[in-house]
Amino acid sequence: MGVRGFKQLTPIPEAQRAVLAALTHVPRAAAVPTPTAVGKYAAADVVAPADVPPFDRAAFDGYAVRSIDTLSASRTNPAMLKLVGKALPGRPHQGALGPGEAVEVATGAPLPPGADAVVPYEEAAAREGYVEVYRPVPQYYYVSRRGEDVVAGEVVIRRGRLIKPWDIGVLASLGIKEVPVYKITAAIISTGNELVELDDAPPPPGKIINSTRHVLEAMLREVGVEPHYMGIVPDDEDVIYERVREALREHDMVITTGGVSVGEPDHVVSAVSRLRPSVLVHGIAARPGRPNSAAVVEGKLIAMLSGFPVASIVGFEVFVKPAVLKMAGAAEEPRPVVKAVLTRRVTTPINVRSFVRVRVYRQGGRLYAEPLAVTGSGILSTLTRGNGLLIIPENREGYDEGDEVEVVLLGPIE
Amino acid sequence: MGVRGFKQLTPIPEAQRAVLAALTHVPRAAAVPTPTAVGKYAAADVVAPADVPPFDRAAFDGYAVRSIDTLSASRTNPAMLKLVGKALPGRPHQGALGPGEAVEVATGAPLPPGADAVVPYEEAAAREGYVEVYRPVPQYYYVSRRGEDVVAGEVVIRRGRLIKPWDIGVLASLGIKEVPVYKITAAIISTGNELVELDDAPPPPGKIINSTRHVLEAMLREVGVEPHYMGIVPDDEDVIYERVREALREHDMVITTGGVSVGEPDHVVSAVSRLRPSVLVHGIAARPGRPNSAAVVEGKLIAMLSGFPVASIVGFEVFVKPAVLKMAGAAEEPRPVVKAVLTRRVTTPINVRSFVRVRVYRQGGRLYAEPLAVTGSGILSTLTRGNGLLIIPENREGYDEGDEVEVVLLGPIE
Repeated sequence: MGVRGFKQLTPIPEAQRAVLAALTHVPRAAAVPTPTAVGKYAAADVVAPADVPPFDRAAFDGYAVRSIDTLSASRTNPAMLKLVGKALPGRPHQGALGPGEAVEVATGAPLPPGADAVVPYEEAAAREGYVEVYRPVPQYYYVSRRGEDVVAGEVVIRRGRLIKPWDIGVLASLGIKEVPVYKITAAIISTGNELVELDDAPPPPGKIINSTRHVLEAMLREVGVEPHYMGIVPDDEDVIYERVREALREHDMVITTGGVSVGEPDHVVSAVSRLRPSVLVHGIAARPGRPNSAAVVEGKLIAMLSGFPVASIVGFEVFVKPAVLKMAGAAEEPRPVVKAVLTRRVTTPINVRSFVRVRVYRQGGRLYAEPLAVTGSGILSTLTRGNGLLIIPENREGYDEGDEVEVVLLGPIE
Repeated sequence: MGVRGFKQLTPIPEAQRAVLAALTHVPRAAAVPTPTAVGKYAAADVVAPADVPPFDRAAFDGYAVRSIDTLSASRTNPAMLKLVGKALPGRPHQGALGPGEAVEVATGAPLPPGADAVVPYEEAAAREGYVEVYRPVPQYYYVSRRGEDVVAGEVVIRRGRLIKPWDIGVLASLGIKEVPVYKITAAIISTGNELVELDDAPPPPGKIINSTRHVLEAMLREVGVEPHYMGIVPDDEDVIYERVREALREHDMVITTGGVSVGEPDHVVSAVSRLRPSVLVHGIAARPGRPNSAAVVEGKLIAMLSGFPVASIVGFEVFVKPAVLKMAGAAEEPRPVVKAVLTRRVTTPINVRSFVRVRVYRQGGRLYAEPLAVTGSGILSTLTRGNGLLIIPENREGYDEGDEVEVVLLGPIE
C-alpha cells in the first residue's frame, strides 16, 4: 500500500491488515518481581518448577484415615478409629498412621504417611480418644494430591498472556519470584501551535489544553504499555521529523497527535514520509476519526492520531491496541457487550465504520440505547454522558429506531 | 444477624445485605492531579468551570463563510467569495469577515467574527484569490459552537464515578488540574503458621507460600483501593485481635486470610468477635469459598477470607468489592458475559452458589464451556487454564451437558 490521498480513505480492516503485516518489531523482555507483573504480557512461557500441592494434603476439615479401615462403616455400625494426633497447616503430625488409627486434620494440613483419605467432621464423631466413622470413604477422598493442581515442568503461563491477579496467585504458589514480561514503551509527541499543557490552564485566547495526551497516556497504561511523553512540538515539518526519528530509536512505538488533516497544516504525514515508511495509511474510513493515520518504519508503528480526544480514541483502537497485542503475542481481552433497543434512528455513511456513543439505560426490564452524537470528533462530553459505544459497520447506513443493536459497555448501566 | 454456627451457612444475598446495611464508614477524600485520577472514584461532583469549546470553531477543514452569502449557490452557479485570510488552530484570522468574504480554516481554528458556517473543501474550490462555493450551507454548518459540548456550571463527573481515561480528557480540556477522589486503603493480615513469604521461597517442608496476599493486593488495586500488607501473624487469637484492632484504626477496611474453618484453628472469627461487631457472618453458602466470613465493626468491613487463593477470590467478590462500591457511592462496572454450550454435566448442591471455572472455546461458529473443577478451593491451575466463570445460582443443582449457560469471561477466548 502506497501513500494515499486523504480523499481515498482506507477502510479500517484494510488499514489494519497492512500495518500489522509490516509490524515486525519485538519489544524488550525483562524479568520483574512476580507481584508487579499484573497488567503486563508474559514474554516467555513460564514453567512450574515444582508440584502443587507439594505434598498430599487435607482438602477438608476432619480426620485423616486409611480408607481401607472404613470399608464396612455405616451409621449403625461405625468404624472405630483411635485418635492419635492432630495436624494443622504447617504443623504436620509427627509419625505415620497405623492401621485402625486416625489423625484430626484441618484443611491444608499435610496428610500423615499411611493416611490416604479424609473423613469430614460431618461424617464422623470423636468420642473419648476414638473417632466413629459413619461411611466408607474411597481412596483420596478429600485429599489434594501432590501435583494434582500443577505438575513440575508444566507450562502455567503462556507467552503473550496478559497477567491477571489470579495468575500471580499461581506463580507465587509455585515460588516463582520473577516473571519475564515485555517492557513496551510508547512515545507521545503532541503537535499543534494551539496547544498548551494542563499545568498552564487556563489557556490564553485561541489556545486549547493538550488533553489528548492524557487520554492516550491512560489508555496505554491500561493495555500494559508505559507512555513517554515528549512534549508539544510546533507545526513544523523539520521539527516533527527530528522528534519522531529520535522517538523511534528509543521506543517500541511512536504516537503523534494533531497535524493530520486534509488541509494545512498536515506536517506530520509529510515528516513521517521522509522516514521512508514501508506502509503509510493516510486517513481511515472512520467517523469520527477520519484523520487518523499510521505508518510503519523499521518494523515499528508510528500512529498519527487526531488531536481531538474522541477521534484519537478511535485511532488508538484501530492502530495502537492491535499493534500492542501483536508485539506481545497477545489476544484481545473480551469487552462487555449488551443488546439494547435503539431509541432514535441513526444515519451513518456507507463504507465508513461509525462509532456512535450511546447512553444505555434499563426500563421495564429492557435495555435501551440512546444515541448521543453521530458526528463531531470534538464532542467530548458524550464520553462522560454516555456509557456505551455502538459500532456501525461499513456495510450499513445506520439503524432504525426500535432496532436491537449490540453495544459495547464502557461503564455501569444506570 | 447474630453470630452463626458454621454449619448454618448464610446465603450470599442475605450475607451481603446484612454487611452492606451496617457499613457506614466514609473514606477520606483528597484532591489528586487529574492525570493520576484514572481508576479512582470521584469523591464529589465535578463542575465545568468554563464552556467547551471556549469559542466557536471550525469542525471541518474548509472555508469559514457567512451562511447568508451561500443562499443561492449551486454547482452551476457558485457563490464567489473573496479569500481574505487563513485561520489555524491557535492562529486566528486577524479581523472580522465582511459580506462576500471567506477565510480558509483548519479543523479546530477559531471562527473569525462575522463567519457562522464552514464550507468543507469538497463543496468548494479556490481560484485566484476567490472561493467558489457549490451549495448553500445552513447557519453553524460544521461549526462547533461555544459551549455546545459542555456549558460552564454543568456537572461533568458525578460523585462515585470510577474515572476512565476519557474522563481525564474531559477534565483536562476544562482546565481542571485536580480531582477529588476517595483514598481507600485496605489492610491485609495473613494468618497461618504454615505461611512463608514469596521472598523466602522455596518453602521448608510442610510450609506454603503466602500467595493469597498477592492475589488480593492486585484485586484491590483493580477496584481502586490501595492495599497495605501487615504481614503474617501466627494462629493466635490474641495476636490476631491486636493486629486487626490496629488495622481497623488506620484503614477503611481490614482483610484477613486464613484461620477461618470449621475445625481448629478458627482464631480469626473469635478474635474479631471480641471487637463487638454489629454484624458477623460466619461462613457463606458458596462453593468454593464456604469459610469466607465477614464482620462490621464501627461501620467498617472486616472481611475474613479463606487462605486459599481461589476461595479468597470468591470472598473478595462477595464482601470486599461490594463494600468498596458502597463506600465510594459507585455502581459495579459491567463484565463481559457470553452464552456458551456446556460440554459436560455440572452437579452442584442446592441452596449454595457455585462458582465453576470453565474454559470457553469457539468451534464451528459456536461457543462451548468446558467445566474445569467444581470443587477444590485449592485448585489454582484452573485460574490459568480457564478463561471463564459459570455462576450457578442457589436454586439450581447444576446444569446438563448441552445446556446453554451464561459465562463471565475472565480472559480471551481461544
